[in-house]
Amino acid sequence: MSYQILTIDTVKEYILNIDSIKNYLENGEITISEIGDGNLNFVYIVTNITNGKSLIVKQAVPYLRIAGEGFPLSRERMNYEIRALTFYSELVPHLVPKIYHADEDMSLIIMENLSEHIIMRKGLIDRVIYPHFSEHISTFLAQTLFYSSSLYLDSSQKRALIDRFNSNTELCKLTEDFVFTLAFMEDGTNDINPDLLAEAKELFSQNDFKKKLLKLKYIFMTQTDALLHGDLHTGSIMLNEEETYVIDPEFAFVGAFGFDIGALIANMINSYISHFYRSQDSEYQAWILDSIKEIYTKFEEKFLELWLQHPNSALLKEGFIAKNELDEFKKEFMQNIFSQSVGFAGAKIGRRVFGIAGVEDIRGIEDKHKRKEAELMALKIGKYLILNYESIMDVDDLIERIQGIN
Amino acid sequence: MSYQILTIDTVKEYILNIDSIKNYLENGEITISEIGDGNLNFVYIVTNITNGKSLIVKQAVPYLRIAGEGFPLSRERMNYEIRALTFYSELVPHLVPKIYHADEDMSLIIMENLSEHIIMRKGLIDRVIYPHFSEHISTFLAQTLFYSSSLYLDSSQKRALIDRFNSNTELCKLTEDFVFTLAFMEDGTNDINPDLLAEAKELFSQNDFKKKLLKLKYIFMTQTDALLHGDLHTGSIMLNEEETYVIDPEFAFVGAFGFDIGALIANMINSYISHFYRSQDSEYQAWILDSIKEIYTKFEEKFLELWLQHPNSALLKEGFIAKNELDEFKKEFMQNIFSQSVGFAGAKIGRRVFGIAGVEDIRGIEDKHKRKEAELMALKIGKYLILNYESIMDVDDLIERIQGIN
Repeated sequence: MSYQILTIDTVKEYILNIDSIKNYLENGEITISEIGDGNLNFVYIVTNITNGKSLIVKQAVPYLRIAGEGFPLSRERMNYEIRALTFYSELVPHLVPKIYHADEDMSLIIMENLSEHIIMRKGLIDRVIYPHFSEHISTFLAQTLFYSSSLYLDSSQKRALIDRFNSNTELCKLTEDFVFTLAFMEDGTNDINPDLLAEAKELFSQNDFKKKLLKLKYIFMTQTDALLHGDLHTGSIMLNEEETYVIDPEFAFVGAFGFDIGALIANMINSYISHFYRSQDSEYQAWILDSIKEIYTKFEEKFLELWLQHPNSALLKEGFIAKNELDEFKKEFMQNIFSQSVGFAGAKIGRRVFGIAGVEDIRGIEDKHKRKEAELMALKIGKYLILNYESIMDVDDLIERIQGIN
Repeated sequence: MSYQILTIDTVKEYILNIDSIKNYLENGEITISEIGDGNLNFVYIVTNITNGKSLIVKQAVPYLRIAGEGFPLSRERMNYEIRALTFYSELVPHLVPKIYHADEDMSLIIMENLSEHIIMRKGLIDRVIYPHFSEHISTFLAQTLFYSSSLYLDSSQKRALIDRFNSNTELCKLTEDFVFTLAFMEDGTNDINPDLLAEAKELFSQNDFKKKLLKLKYIFMTQTDALLHGDLHTGSIMLNEEETYVIDPEFAFVGAFGFDIGALIANMINSYISHFYRSQDSEYQAWILDSIKEIYTKFEEKFLELWLQHPNSALLKEGFIAKNELDEFKKEFMQNIFSQSVGFAGAKIGRRVFGIAGVEDIRGIEDKHKRKEAELMALKIGKYLILNYESIMDVDDLIERIQGIN
């Protein structure tokens, strides 16, 4: 059907016209409620209160939902979310919500309602330990990055993949602007803690780390390693102690290997920082740092294991190079992924301090003085990682260096 | 009109149905002749023998022309040639043939007949000195690379450019296979001088340079810096002592900055090598090396000048970074372009020795012994550049090192 914006009154009629959805919900009394915390899109929960079955309807509108029609943003962003979720569903079905129906013309997707899971950021603020998270998310990263890369696909498959995501221009530009640029200079979009005006001014006048930031931005813009989620912070993960789900890949595009990994590490470091001022629970902080280590180590192991299983690809032809030198090549290749991940993590941490979008972990600290201290620490760590991303050796080194900054 | 393969008998009717072409040729007796040396496509010269006006009609067929219908190759390759030539025509109209008519449905282009120019490879074999070539080709490289990069375009323009070239899959794959892979391993497509079977076997068993070659191949496949010609050897340049024209950009795609530069340098080095065994004209060889130096130096100057003129782009926002650090960033950026160019040049030289496609400069040496010596020298230089591309400092250093190999 041609595009029309659904409302809480028209959602029901729309979805009950889709046979598969009707069959899934079965007969009973259907209620619709809107989830208010969607920034970009309209999100509804549809429940059959007779049998308890429910699902999520998410529709993109041609503007930023929280800002209104005065802030246009192409609704085609939903195409990329649908395409990425479809890709993930085939690869790691246990790590993404089930898709019941998707319609690019309507910029709409109907999917599993994760009613027993919470947004990870909230869980981290509440100091919940997730014993399987590292295992799950390292699988997600290894599988999605490897299978969408030139280390697995052949040349034409890779170019076809790029074709399907290349035009996600607006959302890529949001990252270029807000992650790599505006949060580090005087700009009207920034949201600076009034207690840190002097520190912001100082940061904006520093240039050594900006040279590195430009390098990272250039990599972000021009490197086409693999399909990225594009916004893999802890607000894009829903989980409980048993299960993990990655949601909201509307920023998906074919980009640099390290970007999703970096986003995740950054957001875990932000939580680590916040707990110096929230809970002072050093055991929980240790769990966060251990998780970062475990995630990266397992990601690397799983990625390399997949590479071993697939000796032919756009890049490699069996028999071209001997095992020893191939192993050396892989080692350098993985080192480069690690470095980039650290650099991207630095940009992601730094941009949360003075930029348009903060994180609840830190900006939500109620005590003004503590919030200020947490922001200063985030600034220090973010800048440090940007400056030193090419010389941090491995994840142990990374954690040691983070622990050394306070 | 829908696609049909033209023949020498149907070309005339077809072109005279196009008003602009009819107007250009004017009344008179029209003759058609086929140029036999097109490898991939059918090429006709159309001449009005009454007034001497002429033009070129080039049509792609869905197979490799020289190999026949048994070797399918999608005729859509002509789309990319048309698109690249159109881009070049707007930017550097004096450095590409004038387009009179282009039709993607017919996989056909009608353009200026460069009747007073020869293929550069032939000129180099005949030791012609082209006093303006360095000036012209450095302009071509600087303008086409800069204006199609994220240093000039904004994010959406850049993604739109990628969109127009991303699906040139088949021709990119030819390069991936024949430039970076098959010429360096046992493969049925190779064309090895029977006098060098032992040397080929030895090369195929070496692995140190292959690790570097994989790095270069990966850059080729995944880096989207700028619109490349994609096959800028001396057979893709027509010139005389006054004018230079770049032709045949059917391999065009958005790729790594260094690839066109590397291709050009490689083919000039091949000519330099050939003259040890063809003419022993050391003055001409010195002109070739001087030209490489001049091309690279001028390219860099012109590229940096354009960058200075355009302080805002997808990458840069004025005010983000101070001049000093920006200059340092640019310096490292240009160093990286140079390194890649050298690496790609090495791959391009190396692949001509045992691979499917040799160069006339060297394979055309009639004396078997001399040809063998020339091939060995090309092998040595190619491998050296692949191995050392990251540590060669600048173009002076490059030339010194080449002179040191014999």
